[in-house]
Amino acid sequence: MSEKDTMIREPLLRKRPNTTSQIAIVGANVCPIESLDYEIIENDLFKQDWRSRKKGQIFQYIVLKWTLALLIGLGTGLVGFFNNLAVENIAGFKLLLISNLLLEEKYIKAFLAYAGCNVVLAAAAAALCAYIAPAAAGSGIPEVKAYLNGVDAYSILAPSTLFVKIFGSIFGVSAGFVLGKEGPMVHTGACIASLLGQGGSRKYHLTWRGLRYFKNDRDRRDLITCGAAAGVAAAFRAPVGGVLFALEEAASWWRSALLWRTFFTTAVVAVVLRGFIEFCRSGKCGLFGQGGLIMFDVSSSKATYNTSDLLAAIILGVIGGIFGSLYNYLVDKVLRTYSIINERGAPFKVVLVITISLLTSCCSYGLPWFARCTPCPVGLEEPCPTIGRSGNFKSFQCPPGHYNDLASLFLNTNDDAIRNLFSAGTTNEFDISSLIIFFAAVYCLGIITYGIAVPSGLFIPVILAGASYGRLVGHLLGSISDLDVGLFALLGSASFLGGTMRMTVSLCVILLELTNDLLMLPLVMLVLLISKTVADIFNKGVYDQIVKMKGFPFMEAHAEPYMRHLVAGDVVSGPLITFSGVEKVGNIFHVLKYTGHNGFPVIDEPPISDAQELVGLVLRSHLLVLLKGKMFSRERVLSEDKISCRFDAYDFAKAGSGKGVKLEDLDITEEEMEMYVDLHPITNASPFTVVETMSLAKAAVLFRELGLRHLCVVPKTPGRSPIAGILTRHDFMPEHVLGLHPHFKPTRRGSK
Amino acid sequence: MSEKDTMIREPLLRKRPNTTSQIAIVGANVCPIESLDYEIIENDLFKQDWRSRKKGQIFQYIVLKWTLALLIGLGTGLVGFFNNLAVENIAGFKLLLISNLLLEEKYIKAFLAYAGCNVVLAAAAAALCAYIAPAAAGSGIPEVKAYLNGVDAYSILAPSTLFVKIFGSIFGVSAGFVLGKEGPMVHTGACIASLLGQGGSRKYHLTWRGLRYFKNDRDRRDLITCGAAAGVAAAFRAPVGGVLFALEEAASWWRSALLWRTFFTTAVVAVVLRGFIEFCRSGKCGLFGQGGLIMFDVSSSKATYNTSDLLAAIILGVIGGIFGSLYNYLVDKVLRTYSIINERGAPFKVVLVITISLLTSCCSYGLPWFARCTPCPVGLEEPCPTIGRSGNFKSFQCPPGHYNDLASLFLNTNDDAIRNLFSAGTTNEFDISSLIIFFAAVYCLGIITYGIAVPSGLFIPVILAGASYGRLVGHLLGSISDLDVGLFALLGSASFLGGTMRMTVSLCVILLELTNDLLMLPLVMLVLLISKTVADIFNKGVYDQIVKMKGFPFMEAHAEPYMRHLVAGDVVSGPLITFSGVEKVGNIFHVLKYTGHNGFPVIDEPPISDAQELVGLVLRSHLLVLLKGKMFSRERVLSEDKISCRFDAYDFAKAGSGKGVKLEDLDITEEEMEMYVDLHPITNASPFTVVETMSLAKAAVLFRELGLRHLCVVPKTPGRSPIAGILTRHDFMPEHVLGLHPHFKPTRRGSK
Repeated sequence: MSEKDTMIREPLLRKRPNTTSQIAIVGANVCPIESLDYEIIENDLFKQDWRSRKKGQIFQYIVLKWTLALLIGLGTGLVGFFNNLAVENIAGFKLLLISNLLLEEKYIKAFLAYAGCNVVLAAAAAALCAYIAPAAAGSGIPEVKAYLNGVDAYSILAPSTLFVKIFGSIFGVSAGFVLGKEGPMVHTGACIASLLGQGGSRKYHLTWRGLRYFKNDRDRRDLITCGAAAGVAAAFRAPVGGVLFALEEAASWWRSALLWRTFFTTAVVAVVLRGFIEFCRSGKCGLFGQGGLIMFDVSSSKATYNTSDLLAAIILGVIGGIFGSLYNYLVDKVLRTYSIINERGAPFKVVLVITISLLTSCCSYGLPWFARCTPCPVGLEEPCPTIGRSGNFKSFQCPPGHYNDLASLFLNTNDDAIRNLFSAGTTNEFDISSLIIFFAAVYCLGIITYGIAVPSGLFIPVILAGASYGRLVGHLLGSISDLDVGLFALLGSASFLGGTMRMTVSLCVILLELTNDLLMLPLVMLVLLISKTVADIFNKGVYDQIVKMKGFPFMEAHAEPYMRHLVAGDVVSGPLITFSGVEKVGNIFHVLKYTGHNGFPVIDEPPISDAQELVGLVLRSHLLVLLKGKMFSRERVLSEDKISCRFDAYDFAKAGSGKGVKLEDLDITEEEMEMYVDLHPITNASPFTVVETMSLAKAAVLFRELGLRHLCVVPKTPGRSPIAGILTRHDFMPEHVLGLHPHFKPTRRGSK
Repeated sequence: MSEKDTMIREPLLRKRPNTTSQIAIVGANVCPIESLDYEIIENDLFKQDWRSRKKGQIFQYIVLKWTLALLIGLGTGLVGFFNNLAVENIAGFKLLLISNLLLEEKYIKAFLAYAGCNVVLAAAAAALCAYIAPAAAGSGIPEVKAYLNGVDAYSILAPSTLFVKIFGSIFGVSAGFVLGKEGPMVHTGACIASLLGQGGSRKYHLTWRGLRYFKNDRDRRDLITCGAAAGVAAAFRAPVGGVLFALEEAASWWRSALLWRTFFTTAVVAVVLRGFIEFCRSGKCGLFGQGGLIMFDVSSSKATYNTSDLLAAIILGVIGGIFGSLYNYLVDKVLRTYSIINERGAPFKVVLVITISLLTSCCSYGLPWFARCTPCPVGLEEPCPTIGRSGNFKSFQCPPGHYNDLASLFLNTNDDAIRNLFSAGTTNEFDISSLIIFFAAVYCLGIITYGIAVPSGLFIPVILAGASYGRLVGHLLGSISDLDVGLFALLGSASFLGGTMRMTVSLCVILLELTNDLLMLPLVMLVLLISKTVADIFNKGVYDQIVKMKGFPFMEAHAEPYMRHLVAGDVVSGPLITFSGVEKVGNIFHVLKYTGHNGFPVIDEPPISDAQELVGLVLRSHLLVLLKGKMFSRERVLSEDKISCRFDAYDFAKAGSGKGVKLEDLDITEEEMEMYVDLHPITNASPFTVVETMSLAKAAVLFRELGLRHLCVVPKTPGRSPIAGILTRHDFMPEHVLGLHPHFKPTRRGSK
């Protein structure tokens, strides 16, 4: 089978009836996906360009690379700050309004104002998402992860997606949903990087020749890796955590040089954010206060621990792992249910969002009524600061001098609620019953919120649920452990994060950067390792699960065990379409028109060569550019250097999404159809090849490690056609392999 | 050319007269190097074993993998603690002795005692190194780096090396040299990992069948990566820094699963160290005090900074980068000079070490005489604690109530000197002239110390020089910057580390974990980025430089630019030795005896196959095992399943170094020499292949990314022998390629 990877995503399920139902489609947006090609296409034009490359050009490329990294950092930092500023002001204004109404004991009016604000904000976010950019819904991390693995889902990094992601996230977070801005920030960073790497916009006359170097999937991938890291750095103010996140979770390929560049980008983000915070300290940013740009300082509590604390950490980790994997399981179920609703169209999406918003409002406003009023603790500088939104204590229905602990958690921004839970030296501030109610509510709301048509991160809900769970366990284990309940909350968050996201080093560093407390490191490490190990028994990480559910053909780093029993020839199928070294224009046109393949082997035959031999591989996009250039000849002869004079390598560079030459753009006359065109100058003469008897596992490793889009399979014995087939990423997918060879059982890891 | 990679390292230089003098040999130990093979050898025996693999076995493998990671962590943590304990006690006793003599004003006696102790300790370290394990000299990081790239230098991970590394490092550090224990700890961790992965010792009847799974280069590489990370974690008490060090500097291949396992290992190290420190807090560890296991707490100083501080950081970074690259340049020159001395034999090595020791003693004891006596600062809890070794202040020749600031730096362990320099709120404790003297002395001593026959790390000398330089700059820039001089010392260390080692993220995290101050992160990042960028203009990182100088055929991650103009066929040379599918025993024996090649293509010919075709690749070690098994037949026929019954896959597993079957072990009669043996069951039927017209750059990337030892080159056109040659790592080395094609100019990066 040659490549069919511009196929519509949905038919993947229907076309292969013998595959199991492992692939499902989420959301109504049935959009085409395209594989990316990280191979350097070494055709004659490239080699010519390479030979003539001057020192100045290489220098220009390096300077540009770093300038782009700088710009990505600046852009993401700016957006990150703007996002926080907007959320803090919108949510702050909303909460201030309700506080005032509550003080006047206008409880029903307060609820209506609260729910009303939330619904309006939620509806705005949903409308943006549903009507302008459906791709902006959800976290965005699975899509970025898929992109960095080599799968480009249509419009996932488009400017409209960026716009909706920024504003949708602001409205969504302000609307009081149990969702975060972290996933969306990663997606935003990736979008900014992709936009900067597009080579400007021809529409707005913003093109610049220097950016042509980045017109290939390889350089774009590097930029987007930087963007993803910058997103985490901006969301958590955790520059090292951002780099590690990109490395551990997002990227599929990595090299030392990229580590360095990513590090630079996140350093820029850190400096930008710091600058803005300094600026805002003087009160110029409205309600933007300590709450913006989360940073939970727990360093006031003591950080020594003993064996019984280790035991507590182990218990916390085990239970956290179970809850985490249950969270993933339920998110999966909810997503599948929502996808049925979302598929019906944009209005249904908006209605779903409004429903969830009302439910969230009811919980947030209704549940605090079950909590008792607690007298304010004595000895604080400002007793029970109930007015203003940054206070720890919300009076809600309580008389003066008392506070409602549940309201302090529910009627706050998520960031402030986390800060309250993490706060040290406040053992009795939150009652056990309140923590139980809050944990249950946040856990359930978090699950039903992800999947609605709003940009929604998973980090904050998980941290929130984990922190309340941890604080709860801290209360219960108070007799055997000396640790502060604030530290228990931190460890609880770690256990939930480990249980859902299954990252280790990056989460550890993010948590340390968030809490600014390095002495907790061994305990956090321990909890993360245990919860990940426990959760891995049950299912996959939440992002992997979503990648799978969205039907992205994701190449795993390891080969499946059954692949060792198969050879490359076993999965090659379908008629192979090849071109001659000098091919008739009409043939090429018709093949391009009637097949969806993206790569075609080129074969030389006598008299051009002595025997039939494989010249290499030619890409659809290159053929389109070549046909548009109309360098045809009447005879079947080699063009010699004419093509090289007419074109340069960058004419064939990959255009931005939707900008390349399309088949409809070609205007070829009947006469030209009968003419010939020499494919040699644009043929990649060094495609990677495997012999058909090569173990499929090894072919998969080769494909994955080198970031290929096409892998040529050559016959073992001479005398046949010099190429036996082409493998693409779809051919390595368990669904395809097991469809062809149903006697192999899928491995548990592969099927989940 | 088929493979010759058990070649003696030295002849590399002599055999290729057309290569430049880029390869030099350090040390008299001309030892063979061997390439490692990270490919899974998929021969019939492997496939059979794979098919029969039970669930229990896979589970056993996973449990063992994690148990080994645990053991590596425990072992390295233990050694790290023992190392510190010993150093603190030996050096502490020495310093206490001198303090007492100085108090009695017996200055000459004090010097003799000081120099005498140092020389004895130095001589002990040198004797261990020179006579027992020459491979233990130096840092060890370059060797570990080369191992993880696929080059095994003889005895680099042997038990004797481990022994000498541990004790040599203790004696060396105690002897007051300007060297650290960090590089040796990395090497120690790698040795422990290698030892645990050897599958026990047959000599001491300590074998266990379960460990057979780790008898391959691939699993050993993973273990050694964990070991290297554990070493850094133990040296700096920086578990996250250890993981990042292994990732950024040491390892050439990486995957997410390994990240997790490495993280587990370093977490174990952190827990072990913490346990021991808790134990020692009660005073059970002799003179082991705060100084053991470096951790410089600077959190007492303020961590806000403004634009002028950024400017200061930039200046610091630029100058640090220049000094760092100069350091590398001088270390290189000194190493080349020392190698001439060291080559003369063990006694010369010891004499060199004693000379440097005396020089160091003279500097340490002599230079403080140039410093003025400073009155002790008032307001401290214990005024001027000159007695005992953990005090900041050394009185030296000064009257009571005064201290000698230079003596406080020189007559201390390196760890304590760094702590003094990093200490915050002590702006006037050290005089500018003292800092200048100390910086100059440490910078020079550090350069001339590396390369002597003692286990010596580079981190501590560089941090020491950088800290004094930074503190100096802090004094000078005191007018424009509000930063504490302690923080300047930290930034100065960062700039020197960035300038010599050229790591970024890992150094940043190590420094943060050392100083426990996350708020400095953006400044540290900035300084590191600048100093690395500046230093990269001049030369390569110090470890890369040593790898190059030692002549290891190190595969870079990127292909050299001139490789794009060459094809795989251009560098294949020499007569190729192939075997038939069923080969005569005598032929095999003679080939093994008279060539050094390690991989041989196996070719089937009629009547066994229809046409001449490539079966695959067979390894020397497998052939030796097969010949030893004597499954010969009188006729040229396929053996069918007989071999599979007699052998199982683990008989062919890679033995520990020096333990495999040797040619001399074979006892083949004249009659048997005339018999035939079937090579099919042990032939790797899925070797990676490239067509001879494949771009050399792409072949190099394939070779590097997949961790190969042999890459088969197949002809483009049929009708010739089915294999054109074999590429090994030597064929990709710039020396070889440019030797064959001298018209290409080496790139600057490649030649340096």
